[in-house]
Amino acid sequence: MSRTGRRKGETRTREAIADAARELFAKRGFDRTSLRAVAAAAGVDPSLVLHFYGSKERLFLSVVSPPVDPAVLIPHVLEGPPEKAGERLALFVLGVIEEPAARERVTAMVRAAASEPAAAAILRDLISREVLTPVAQALGVEDAPLRASLVGSQMVGLVMARYIVQVEPLASASAEQVARAIAPTLTRYLSGPLD
Amino acid sequence: MSRTGRRKGETRTREAIADAARELFAKRGFDRTSLRAVAAAAGVDPSLVLHFYGSKERLFLSVVSPPVDPAVLIPHVLEGPPEKAGERLALFVLGVIEEPAARERVTAMVRAAASEPAAAAILRDLISREVLTPVAQALGVEDAPLRASLVGSQMVGLVMARYIVQVEPLASASAEQVARAIAPTLTRYLSGPLD
Repeated sequence: MSRTGRRKGETRTREAIADAARELFAKRGFDRTSLRAVAAAAGVDPSLVLHFYGSKERLFLSVVSPPVDPAVLIPHVLEGPPEKAGERLALFVLGVIEEPAARERVTAMVRAAASEPAAAAILRDLISREVLTPVAQALGVEDAPLRASLVGSQMVGLVMARYIVQVEPLASASAEQVARAIAPTLTRYLSGPLD
Repeated sequence: MSRTGRRKGETRTREAIADAARELFAKRGFDRTSLRAVAAAAGVDPSLVLHFYGSKERLFLSVVSPPVDPAVLIPHVLEGPPEKAGERLALFVLGVIEEPAARERVTAMVRAAASEPAAAAILRDLISREVLTPVAQALGVEDAPLRASLVGSQMVGLVMARYIVQVEPLASASAEQVARAIAPTLTRYLSGPLD
């Protein structure tokens, strides 16, 4: 096999493993998903899962990446009038997670974080590194990590109430109505008074 | 056995079943907890669990009752200046759930709701009947159910971020600091503009 051919085969194998892992983590949770089961579902040898991903924790981390790219979201939120920052954030995030595949990824992440300490620890590190630290740097204020975690608390609560528990009328309100309702909350958490 | 003695025995049996159920639901989740396992942990015959509670759903419902009594909370929040309603709500709820036993009950409820559709459905009905409907009646406004579910989204998100995922610095901030930070959010959801 040529070098290019081998590289394509490796990419396909990695993707098959990631697809199988995403489905099993969503269905069974982190604890009850074994690397052996992922390998079987992907139709590959278990040793290949370890070869490509190193550990179950790293495999999980690589498949639960947030559907919203912070490198795109953060400049979008911070550019423009600060009093509209919460609205831009809410509309952007809701725009993404109203789409079924993205919603499934987000609810799988929240479910895993809620029920499994190991998954929660992985997500805590992910949130801190990929969201809180960049937001803190972008905001350039001392209490930015607290502000970012308050934003996170409202967003994760919205995912729980609207998509997972499906409390009415929040579950069937339009995305625009929800975005307008939470926008001032997010704006204040980002740059308003906190006490 | 006298009538009083029998009643005391029944109360003790009910409590032993409830204690065992609370512990098993918290540890294993709703799906993986059987009535047989609850009976074994309580040291009673399985038929007694059915006799006292009727079904697994009703047993779950009776042990996951929120640690905050809406009949006490709602008047406390609604009496006094409306612009301080969110502060009264935040301080009251945090005052209760900072206490370890209550926190354990709340996190068990959120975990169950996040990971198990059957538990989520039970909690959705519970929230609607015991929280949203009384709040709607007390507020006396047309969009009260939406307002109450927005309050719920921030509170459940706070439980996720502070107690379950434990994102810093929200996890180690003082209860007073957290209450002050979220109070204006709750006040606006209760009585402020939503768009």
